[in-house]
Amino acid sequence: MNLFGTAGIRGDVTERVTPELALAVGRAVATEIRAPERIVDGEDAGSRTTPAPEVVLARDGRVSGGALAAAMEAGLTAGGVEVRRAGRLPTPALAYASRGRYGVMLTASHNPPTDNGIKCFRDGREFSDELEAAIESRVEEGVSPASWDEWTEAHRIDPLADYRAAVREYATGFGANLDGLRIAVDCGNGMSAPATPTVLRELGAAVVTLNGNVDGYFPGRGSKPTPETLQDLRSFVSDANAGIDEPGRAGRDDDGFAFGIGHDGDADRIVIVDAAGEVVHEDTVLAILAEAYVRRSEAAEPVVVTTPNASGRIDERVRAAGGRVERVRLGALHEGIARVEQGSEDGGEGGRTVAFAAEPWKHIHVPFGGWIDGVCSAAVIARLVADEGLDALREPVTERPYRKLSVTCSDERKRPAMDALATSLPEAFPEASVDTDHGVRLEFPDAAWALVRPSGTEAYIRIYAESDAVDTLVEDVRAVVEDAIADE
Amino acid sequence: MNLFGTAGIRGDVTERVTPELALAVGRAVATEIRAPERIVDGEDAGSRTTPAPEVVLARDGRVSGGALAAAMEAGLTAGGVEVRRAGRLPTPALAYASRGRYGVMLTASHNPPTDNGIKCFRDGREFSDELEAAIESRVEEGVSPASWDEWTEAHRIDPLADYRAAVREYATGFGANLDGLRIAVDCGNGMSAPATPTVLRELGAAVVTLNGNVDGYFPGRGSKPTPETLQDLRSFVSDANAGIDEPGRAGRDDDGFAFGIGHDGDADRIVIVDAAGEVVHEDTVLAILAEAYVRRSEAAEPVVVTTPNASGRIDERVRAAGGRVERVRLGALHEGIARVEQGSEDGGEGGRTVAFAAEPWKHIHVPFGGWIDGVCSAAVIARLVADEGLDALREPVTERPYRKLSVTCSDERKRPAMDALATSLPEAFPEASVDTDHGVRLEFPDAAWALVRPSGTEAYIRIYAESDAVDTLVEDVRAVVEDAIADE
Amino acid sequence: MNLFGTAGIRGDVTERVTPELALAVGRAVATEIRAPERIVDGEDAGSRTTPAPEVVLARDGRVSGGALAAAMEAGLTAGGVEVRRAGRLPTPALAYASRGRYGVMLTASHNPPTDNGIKCFRDGREFSDELEAAIESRVEEGVSPASWDEWTEAHRIDPLADYRAAVREYATGFGANLDGLRIAVDCGNGMSAPATPTVLRELGAAVVTLNGNVDGYFPGRGSKPTPETLQDLRSFVSDANAGIDEPGRAGRDDDGFAFGIGHDGDADRIVIVDAAGEVVHEDTVLAILAEAYVRRSEAAEPVVVTTPNASGRIDERVRAAGGRVERVRLGALHEGIARVEQGSEDGGEGGRTVAFAAEPWKHIHVPFGGWIDGVCSAAVIARLVADEGLDALREPVTERPYRKLSVTCSDERKRPAMDALATSLPEAFPEASVDTDHGVRLEFPDAAWALVRPSGTEAYIRIYAESDAVDTLVEDVRAVVEDAIADE
Amino acid sequence: MNLFGTAGIRGDVTERVTPELALAVGRAVATEIRAPERIVDGEDAGSRTTPAPEVVLARDGRVSGGALAAAMEAGLTAGGVEVRRAGRLPTPALAYASRGRYGVMLTASHNPPTDNGIKCFRDGREFSDELEAAIESRVEEGVSPASWDEWTEAHRIDPLADYRAAVREYATGFGANLDGLRIAVDCGNGMSAPATPTVLRELGAAVVTLNGNVDGYFPGRGSKPTPETLQDLRSFVSDANAGIDEPGRAGRDDDGFAFGIGHDGDADRIVIVDAAGEVVHEDTVLAILAEAYVRRSEAAEPVVVTTPNASGRIDERVRAAGGRVERVRLGALHEGIARVEQGSEDGGEGGRTVAFAAEPWKHIHVPFGGWIDGVCSAAVIARLVADEGLDALREPVTERPYRKLSVTCSDERKRPAMDALATSLPEAFPEASVDTDHGVRLEFPDAAWALVRPSGTEAYIRIYAESDAVDTLVEDVRAVVEDAIADE
Repeated sequence: MNLFGTAGIRGDVTERVTPELALAVGRAVATEIRAPERIVDGEDAGSRTTPAPEVVLARDGRVSGGALAAAMEAGLTAGGVEVRRAGRLPTPALAYASRGRYGVMLTASHNPPTDNGIKCFRDGREFSDELEAAIESRVEEGVSPASWDEWTEAHRIDPLADYRAAVREYATGFGANLDGLRIAVDCGNGMSAPATPTVLRELGAAVVTLNGNVDGYFPGRGSKPTPETLQDLRSFVSDANAGIDEPGRAGRDDDGFAFGIGHDGDADRIVIVDAAGEVVHEDTVLAILAEAYVRRSEAAEPVVVTTPNASGRIDERVRAAGGRVERVRLGALHEGIARVEQGSEDGGEGGRTVAFAAEPWKHIHVPFGGWIDGVCSAAVIARLVADEGLDALREPVTERPYRKLSVTCSDERKRPAMDALATSLPEAFPEASVDTDHGVRLEFPDAAWALVRPSGTEAYIRIYAESDAVDTLVEDVRAVVEDAIADE
Repeated sequence: MNLFGTAGIRGDVTERVTPELALAVGRAVATEIRAPERIVDGEDAGSRTTPAPEVVLARDGRVSGGALAAAMEAGLTAGGVEVRRAGRLPTPALAYASRGRYGVMLTASHNPPTDNGIKCFRDGREFSDELEAAIESRVEEGVSPASWDEWTEAHRIDPLADYRAAVREYATGFGANLDGLRIAVDCGNGMSAPATPTVLRELGAAVVTLNGNVDGYFPGRGSKPTPETLQDLRSFVSDANAGIDEPGRAGRDDDGFAFGIGHDGDADRIVIVDAAGEVVHEDTVLAILAEAYVRRSEAAEPVVVTTPNASGRIDERVRAAGGRVERVRLGALHEGIARVEQGSEDGGEGGRTVAFAAEPWKHIHVPFGGWIDGVCSAAVIARLVADEGLDALREPVTERPYRKLSVTCSDERKRPAMDALATSLPEAFPEASVDTDHGVRLEFPDAAWALVRPSGTEAYIRIYAESDAVDTLVEDVRAVVEDAIADE
Repeated sequence: MNLFGTAGIRGDVTERVTPELALAVGRAVATEIRAPERIVDGEDAGSRTTPAPEVVLARDGRVSGGALAAAMEAGLTAGGVEVRRAGRLPTPALAYASRGRYGVMLTASHNPPTDNGIKCFRDGREFSDELEAAIESRVEEGVSPASWDEWTEAHRIDPLADYRAAVREYATGFGANLDGLRIAVDCGNGMSAPATPTVLRELGAAVVTLNGNVDGYFPGRGSKPTPETLQDLRSFVSDANAGIDEPGRAGRDDDGFAFGIGHDGDADRIVIVDAAGEVVHEDTVLAILAEAYVRRSEAAEPVVVTTPNASGRIDERVRAAGGRVERVRLGALHEGIARVEQGSEDGGEGGRTVAFAAEPWKHIHVPFGGWIDGVCSAAVIARLVADEGLDALREPVTERPYRKLSVTCSDERKRPAMDALATSLPEAFPEASVDTDHGVRLEFPDAAWALVRPSGTEAYIRIYAESDAVDTLVEDVRAVVEDAIADE
Repeated sequence: MNLFGTAGIRGDVTERVTPELALAVGRAVATEIRAPERIVDGEDAGSRTTPAPEVVLARDGRVSGGALAAAMEAGLTAGGVEVRRAGRLPTPALAYASRGRYGVMLTASHNPPTDNGIKCFRDGREFSDELEAAIESRVEEGVSPASWDEWTEAHRIDPLADYRAAVREYATGFGANLDGLRIAVDCGNGMSAPATPTVLRELGAAVVTLNGNVDGYFPGRGSKPTPETLQDLRSFVSDANAGIDEPGRAGRDDDGFAFGIGHDGDADRIVIVDAAGEVVHEDTVLAILAEAYVRRSEAAEPVVVTTPNASGRIDERVRAAGGRVERVRLGALHEGIARVEQGSEDGGEGGRTVAFAAEPWKHIHVPFGGWIDGVCSAAVIARLVADEGLDALREPVTERPYRKLSVTCSDERKRPAMDALATSLPEAFPEASVDTDHGVRLEFPDAAWALVRPSGTEAYIRIYAESDAVDTLVEDVRAVVEDAIADE
C-alpha cells in the first residue's frame, strides 16, 4: 500500500477514501500519537491521569465530508484520543487550530467532487514523512483496539472566527489599509467562502464574490483554479474595468476592481487575477511575496524556501532584497524549513531564518505559522496592493519565456542517466551554478534557469527552462540529456 | 406606539429594534398565543398536561441577528412557549417551518445592515392585523410574567434541508427539467445563498453565484435588489452572453446564461434579469407567474389576488387564461386570499379559488403555502424558462409606458377630495371600469389603467398610470384631481 | 455469522460490536431500507426527488456510545439515508421517535460496561426477523457503496422532551393523580435518569433518585436490576419506612416511600420494590398491568400477549377481567401482536385486540406504541398505586411456589424427546390444558402450570413449574421427561 | 438600587432576577469590561483589530436558566464582547473556565427553585467590590448601545470535561488512591451531578449517588444542604453501615460507606457526613483542610484566610501545623487573599503565602484557583480520608460547645456601642487577644473565642462564642455588651 501521496491521502470516496479507510486511519493516528515514544517529556499517555492527546477534526464542503468525518471521529475516539469536532473549515483554519495539539482535515483540495482525502497535522504542520510512514504501517497491520474505558466522547468547537481574527491581525503588518479597495473573489463554492471575503471586508475592502455559496458539487466552476476555470472571474473583473482609465489604482473610486482572487476547494491555494482579467503567473506572485518577506525580515540572511520547479525570478527578487533561496523537493517545504532552522540552531551559520516558504500557488507564511495558507496570502497581498498597486508590485519581477519538454527514457536508464548528468550538465554549462539535490538545476547569471529531472510516473526525463532565449537553452540541454540517456 | 408597519416591526437596532424590544415582543407573543381564547378546541394552555404552543425562531444573516434572537428566545421561553431555535434561515423557510405551529423571524428584509426587524407567523401566514394589534397592546401595557415553572428550554432544529426539498418537489409541477440551464444568481450576501442556488442545482441547473457568501454587512451590493444594486449581475450576465447568438435559448450549450436572479436579504423578494442584462419589469414577472398558475388551475374561475399598484398587464394575462384578478391594499395579500376563500366557502360563488397572490417582487405560491417566497419563485420561473424560454414567456405580456405624478394636497383636503373623485373620475372616464376599494382605480378596455390615491405620509395625492398614451392619460386624470382638491 | 440474537446485536466493543461492525451494519441498514421492495406505494428511493428514508440515531450512556454512534452515522449517511442524531436517549424514547420513520439504538441494555449493541426500529417496532435476516446477509456479503452524490449530512434532533410529554399524557388515562406520592427510583446510572424521575415529578410525585447520574461505568450498581443489585434501593426504601405504620398508604404524608423503581441501563426494563424493600415478582407486576389493561379495554375479547415462561397468575387475572392470554416464544412479542391483529382483521374473530403484551420485566403498552417501555410502565404503575395502593393491587394476584429444574439431555436427543413429550405429557396430566407451540406448557385448572423446553445453549431440557404443590408437580413432570429422553 | 449582595445578584425570577435584568446586566458588564481603563497594557478595545474581551456564560440546572442565559447572551453580544456559551455547569467549573478571560454564572446556589442569580468572574475570581459597583452604576444609569457592527455571535464550548480532569489531577497531590473506597454523594438534583461522582469514580472510588439527576425543581430535597435536608443521605449511609464493625475503615471491603457528601445546587458548597450518618461540623471540615494545606505548604509562614464566624479550632490546627490565620469579613475571602499576597510582595514579610482560604462550607483551594470549589473539596477530602480515615482526620480537632445570642440594640446605638466595645471588651478579658477589624473578636489561650458584631439587617448586636465553658463566656460578654449599649 502507498497510502500517503505528496498531498496526503486522496481519492474516490467509493473506492479509495471510504468511511472504512477513514475509520482505519483514525484508529492508526490515535494509536500512533498515544504511543509512548511520541509523548514528550516522558509523560505516560496510558495512565488515566495524563490527559489524552487532543485532535481537532474538520472537513471541507464536500458531499462526502459528513460521513467521512463521522468515520474518522469513530476511529479517533475508539482509539483513545480527545476529539474536537470543528465542522466545515478551510484547511489553513484547521492547521491554525491544530497548534499545540493535533489536527485531521478531510479534504481533497481541488480534486473533483467524487473525491475526498485526509491530511494530518501536528502543531500546525503536516505530519512528517516519518510519522506518515508510521500511520501507514499501522493501517496495513491493523491496530489492537484501545480498552473500552479509554474511548472518548468528541466535543464541538468553532475555531473559524479566531482564525479569521488572527489572519486579520497578522496582515496588518504589511502594506496599507484597504480603505474601500474593490476586490473580486471567486471562492469556487469552496471553503474560502466563509474566510477570505470576510477577512478582506474586515480589513476594509469592498468585496464582491463569485461562487461564494459552499456547495460540494462545485457547480460554479472546477475546483482547481486555472485560467480556464477562472474564466467567469476574469471576465467579471475585466468587464468591470473596461473604460476605466487606471483600474489598478482605481478599484476604490469606481465600479472597477483592483484585482481578483481565486481559491481552490479548501483555500490552501490562491491565484491572482489582475485588473485586465489576466492570471498573474504563480511564480510572480511567489516572487512578490518572497521579496516582501525578505525586506521585512530582521535576520542577517533571511532564507526563502522553495521548490526546483519555481522560477529564477524568485531568486532575483530575494537576492535583490538581501536574502537567499533554498530549494527542496516538491511537497517538502516543511523539511526545508526545519533544515534551515536546524542549521541555524547548530550555530554554523548565525542569523539564518526562514522568512517565507512556498511552492507555486501554495504559500507558507512562516512568521504566522507552518502551514500553506491561501487566506493569509489573500490578506497580505491585498494589503501590499493597497499600498503600492499590483502593477508596481509586478514591475521589478522579470517574467522570461518558459518551456517544458519531455525526453523519452526507460525507467532503468533514468538512474544512470541522472548520475551522468550530474557531471555532464555542469560541464556543458560552466557559467551556471548547479544544484543536484532534486534533479539537476542550472542557474545562470542572468536569472535564466533549467531543471532536469526524471518523471516519477512516466518513461521520461523532463526538462524545464526559463530564459530570454528559452528555445536555445532547451535544445542545448536536450542534447546533453539525450547523450546521457544513450551513453551506455 | 405603532409597532407593526406593513412589513412587521423594522428599524435601527440601537434605537428601535433593540434586544429590549425583542425581549418584550417575545414575552407578548408568548402570552398572547397562550391566552385561552387563542387555543383551539377548548384546550387549556395553562394546564401542565397540555403541551405549550411551539414557536420556531430564526434570523437572517445580519450582524445583530445573534443578539436579537437570544433576546427573543428569552422572552418566548420566559413566557412559557416551546421554542425551536432554527438559526439562520431565509424568511420563506421559516414560514414553511411554522406550518402547524408558530414562527418568529428576525429580519429587516432589504433594509441596510444597521436595521433589523421582527415578523411573526402562525401556520405559515404572517400574523393577522388583529393578532398584531393584540401583541402591540401587550407590549405597550407590559405582560405579567409566567410562573417560574412554566418557563421552557429552547431546542435546536434544522429545517432548511426539508424546505429545500419541498420547494424542489413543488417546482417539478411546472415547466421542464433544467437540464444544465445556466443561471446566474446574485444572493446579495443574504439568506437566499444556502437556498436558491442549491435548489436550482438540485433541479439540474448550472448555477454561478454572485455574493453567495452570507455577510451581514452586505458588502457586495445594497440589500434591496434594484437595477442599480444589481449592476454587477447585469453586466456579468450580458458580458457572458455577448457574442452568443441566442443567449436565451443558449444558457445550456455555452458559457452564457439563460437569465439572472437577484434576491433581497431574506429571500422573500426576487428580481429577474434577462439574457441581455436588463431587469424584467416586476409586473411582467408577476403576469407570467399569474398566467401560469391560472392555466394550471382546475377551479372554475381561478382568482389572482394582487394590489392596486400592480399593472393592468396582469389582468390581461389572467383574463386570457380564464381567471379573474382581485385587488387588496398593499401588504394585505393574506386578507385578500382569506376573503376569496371565505366567499367561496359561503357558497355564493362556487369554484372560486386563489390560484396565486402577489405584490410586485413578492409572490405567494398559494398551492405551496401562504407566505411570500422568492426561492420558490426562482425554482418555478427556472422551470418555466427551461420549458419555453424567457422571451417566449414575456412575449404575450404587453408593457405599456408608465408614469407616476404627485399633486399637492393638504392632509385635511385628502378625504373630501378622494370622496369627490370616487364620483368625478368615473364620470370623466365613462369607458373605464372603476374600483374604489383602495383609492380610485380606473381600468380601460385596452388594459391601460390609472390609480389615484392619497399619500399616507406626505401632502400629496398620487397618480399612477400605465397606457400607450400615458402622458395624455396622466394629464387628463390630473385635471380631475386638481378640481376635486380645489372644489370647496 | 449469527449477528442478531433475541435482543439484537450485542457484545464486547473491542471484539464484537466494534466501530467497524457499526459502520458495516449502518451501510447494510441504509442499503436495505432504500431497496425498491422496501419502499411503499411504488416510490423510487433512488430518484433525487423522492426523499431518502429517515433514521433517528441514538445511544445509551455507555463509554463506547460516542464512537459507535459516529461509526453508525458514517455507515448510514454513506449509505444514502437521512440521519437524525438524537444523542443519549432511553431505548423507549428512541423507539417513540422512530414512529413514521426508522430508528437505530446503540445499547447493550443491562450488559456490563464493556459491551454495547445495536437495535433497529421501523415505525416504533423492532425490526422483524425477516428484516434482520436481510441486514445480516448484507453485512456478510458487503454492500456496494452508494454513489457519492447520494451521501447525506446528519442533523441533530432532541426528541426526549416530546417523549416525556407523551408518556405523561398517556399515563393520565390510568389511576389517580400522584399528588405528592413519594417514590424512590434507582436509575442505575443509566438512561432512565433523564426520563422516569422527571415524568413522575411532572405527574406530581415526590421523587428521590439513587444513581441518577448517567455514567457509562455503572459505578453505583450492576446495570441489570436484580434483588442483589437493587440492595441499596431496597434498604433505602425499607429503612425510610421503618417505624411508619402504613408505609404503602403513607408515601405522601411522611418521609417514607410508597414504593421503589429500578431500571436497567436503557430503561426498557423495570423492577418494582415494595414499601418493605422487597422486590415484587416480575410476573405479579405483569399480572397487575395486564388486568388493568384488560379492564380498560373496550374490545369484545381483549388479548394479552406473553411468553411461555410467564406465570399462570397472569392468565388468572386476565381471565378474571374478561380477557384472554396468548403466548409466543421469548423475544417474539411483536409477532404475537401482529398475529392477533391479523387474525382480527381476517374477520374470523371479531373484536380481538391486543390490550397489552409483555415478557417478565418488559412491557409493551400497546395503545401507546409497539415497543418495550419501562418509563411508561413506571408512570402507569405509579398512577395505579396512587389510586389503590400497591398492596391492594397485589392482593388478587396469587403467587404460588415456583421451581426450575434442568434434566441432562444430549443435543441429539432434544428433538425426539420433545416430540415424544408432546404426546406423553398430555397423557400423564389429562386435567391440564396443553400448549405445544413453544415447548410443552401445561396449565392446570387451579392456575398451576408447568413448562418443558429444551435449552438453546446447553445440554439440558428445562422444567419450570409454579403450583401450591410445586415439588410434587416438578417430580411428576421430571419422570415423564426422563422417560422421553431415555426412550429410544 | 443595591444590586449585588454578598453572594452576587440573587432573587425571584418573576420579580427581581428577570430576563430584563439579565439583559441589562449583560449590557453593563460588556460595556464595563470593554471600557478603556479596564484594558490592560494600553490596548484599545474599541479598535477592530483588538479582539473583544471573551466571556464564558453558563447556568445551573434551574428551570429559569435557559431564558436568563439567553437574555444575558443578548446583553453581552449586543454589548460587543465575545460570548462562549457553556450551557449547564457547576459554578466552580465556570470559574475554572473563566481563567484568562471573564465568566458569568447564572445560579442562585442553594436558593429555592423560584429564584435565580448572577455571579461574575474575572480570571477565576468573583468580581471585586469596585467592579460590582461599576456594573451596578451602569445598570442604574443605562448604557449607550454598542454600534451595530460591534455586536457579536456567541459560540458554544464544553469545558466540563477539562475541569473534571484538572480537579482529578490536582487532587492526586493529596492523600492516597481511593482504591474502591465507597462514598455516597447526594447531589440534590444540582450541578454537582455531572462533576463530583465522575471525578471520584475516576479517582478510583465506588460512588453511589442520591438525587444525581439534574432537575430544576429540586424534587429530592431542599437545595441547601443542612442536617435536615440531608436526612435521606444520612440514613442511607448509617443504615448501610449498621452492623459493620469499623465502617470508616470499611467502605472498601463491604457494602458500607466511608462517608457521605452533600452539595448545594451549584456545587460550590460541600457538607461531609460521617460513617454514622452525622454531619461533620463545617468548621471541623475547614480545620482539616486548613491543616492539610499548611502542612503541605513550602512557605515560611503559610496563611489561612477565613472569616470571623469561623471557629478557633481552625486557628488551633493551623498553628499546630506551623501556619497563621487571617480573618476578613464574610464574603470577602478574595480581598483577604489579595491583601496577604500584596503584603508579601511588598516585601515586609517574606514567605507569606495564602495556602488556603475558606468560609464555613465554602473552600477556596488557592493553589488550584481563586474560586470556591465544592467539587475540588470532595476530591481532596476523599483522598485524605483514603489515606488516614475520617476519624483520624477529625481526632486532633477539638469541637467545643458553641452558642449564639442576640442583644437588642437600636440602629443608632450600634455604632457608639461597637466603638465602646472596642475598648471595654479587651479590658474585660485581658487574657484574650483582640481583633477589631470586623466587629470585636476575642481569642483565648485555650482556643475558646467570642465574636461581637452588629446585625446588618436587624436591631441586634450578636454574640457568638465557642468554649468549654460557653455559657459563662456568653454571659460575661453579654454584660459588657449591654453596658456599652446602655452607656450614653
